Amino acid sequence: MSYPNNTPPYNYGAPPPSSTQPPYSYGQPPPPGPYSQPPYSSDPTKPPKDSYQGGGYPTPQPGYPSAPYPPQGSSPYGSPFASLVPSAFPPGTDPNLVSSFQMADRDGSGFIDDKELQTALSSYNQSFSLRTVHLLMYHFTNTNTRKIGPKEYTSVFYSLQNWRSIFDRFDRDRSGKIDASELREALLSLGFSVSPIVLDLLVSKFDKSGGKNRAIEYDNFIECCLTVKGLTEKFKEKDTSYTGSASFTYEAFMLTVLPFLIA
Amino acid sequence: MSYPNNTPPYNYGAPPPSSTQPPYSYGQPPPPGPYSQPPYSSDPTKPPKDSYQGGGYPTPQPGYPSAPYPPQGSSPYGSPFASLVPSAFPPGTDPNLVSSFQMADRDGSGFIDDKELQTALSSYNQSFSLRTVHLLMYHFTNTNTRKIGPKEYTSVFYSLQNWRSIFDRFDRDRSGKIDASELREALLSLGFSVSPIVLDLLVSKFDKSGGKNRAIEYDNFIECCLTVKGLTEKFKEKDTSYTGSASFTYEAFMLTVLPFLIA
Repeated sequence: MSYPNNTPPYNYGAPPPSSTQPPYSYGQPPPPGPYSQPPYSSDPTKPPKDSYQGGGYPTPQPGYPSAPYPPQGSSPYGSPFASLVPSAFPPGTDPNLVSSFQMADRDGSGFIDDKELQTALSSYNQSFSLRTVHLLMYHFTNTNTRKIGPKEYTSVFYSLQNWRSIFDRFDRDRSGKIDASELREALLSLGFSVSPIVLDLLVSKFDKSGGKNRAIEYDNFIECCLTVKGLTEKFKEKDTSYTGSASFTYEAFMLTVLPFLIA
Repeated sequence: MSYPNNTPPYNYGAPPPSSTQPPYSYGQPPPPGPYSQPPYSSDPTKPPKDSYQGGGYPTPQPGYPSAPYPPQGSSPYGSPFASLVPSAFPPGTDPNLVSSFQMADRDGSGFIDDKELQTALSSYNQSFSLRTVHLLMYHFTNTNTRKIGPKEYTSVFYSLQNWRSIFDRFDRDRSGKIDASELREALLSLGFSVSPIVLDLLVSKFDKSGGKNRAIEYDNFIECCLTVKGLTEKFKEKDTSYTGSASFTYEAFMLTVLPFLIA
């Protein structure tokens, strides 16, 4: 199949950008930068400067930050560690699901932590590494506190059921793995359209064999879905005029991507 | 210490933004979106639509992509799997370093792979997981091919020496761990200024104890440095007018972030 060379941004189903807001243009060399003394260490083989003279974040104060951090709510971006609001199971929830949560919530706090969630899911034949569990928790709470309540537990459970059935549908030979082509279809069926290059990168990252199999097992499929879904949703939040381009400050960029990088 | 509430973007040492290009403004509600039928599955508990109707990436063709992928060089973004150019050791390189590379490069190809790099580094008391090795390779080659040559090997080696000495300098009590305050100073000495919130997120992500110690060991310190350095540099490439804000298309955003996923 011929592949269009310069298709405008893979805009995940967005309407074409309006003519007054052309999509961010690629392929142009950056203008000559005004950085006469960039604060970055540009040559990794050179030792760093002993004293940092750059601007940017306020100069460190002696003793800071051994003093308590400022209240996190003071950030204009909201806290990445915001507490979770207590919740209840939606009416009509399967009683087995309720009791599995209650068994996991040993101290009866109404919340379960990462290890308790891992255990609860494994009783449903859903075995995940703690990293995947952390990604799941982040996805359904939008905070990094690593606690979930009944409402989020229900969402986690039904999403996993759904993703499991999608995985099984595309794992036609029941090998326990799906290849790049099947991953692409699976992501499409979840509403995510990724380019062949992104697809390649996803397979290379989530293939446990380090690229030999060019295929993804179920647990890594879940990580992959959570990553694509999460990053796309975060991007969409910033792409307020739906042009296929989004602007980030440095701070927002870091707070957006870091939760997905290491779980 | 009081912490300014609304300091303009943590601009990693950038000059103040010009008045004609105000930094991307936060705290404003997004305008009402025109998404009448978003292609995203917005409610994770709902099953996905069976047939995907969204636009975006070209409609799948029957059989695609079991046919060979289009040449990756056709992407306007360059290939994330570009081959590495063969290189030689810089004149004057420590002969021990040269011979350690030659020992690792068993087939004499002039390149070593991830496992060979892992072994070579461990002979210098630098023990890393394959995940960290992959991040190192990406950082010094800017591709995901997972091969490095003499030039990159030299850079990896001297950077690790440098980062080791920075780590040791800040690990004052020789505990093998540095805390948040020390991490902040260490990143500053590398030229990276991160906000307390980003710092908190970094510590929570890279702390092997899952947040109990609030401290980072040497190998995770390397992952942390590579992540902060890499993301900041990628951001800076997009922030061509040095305003502290950067625009990404969806494709560029995904291709920027995915290589840093530690999978």
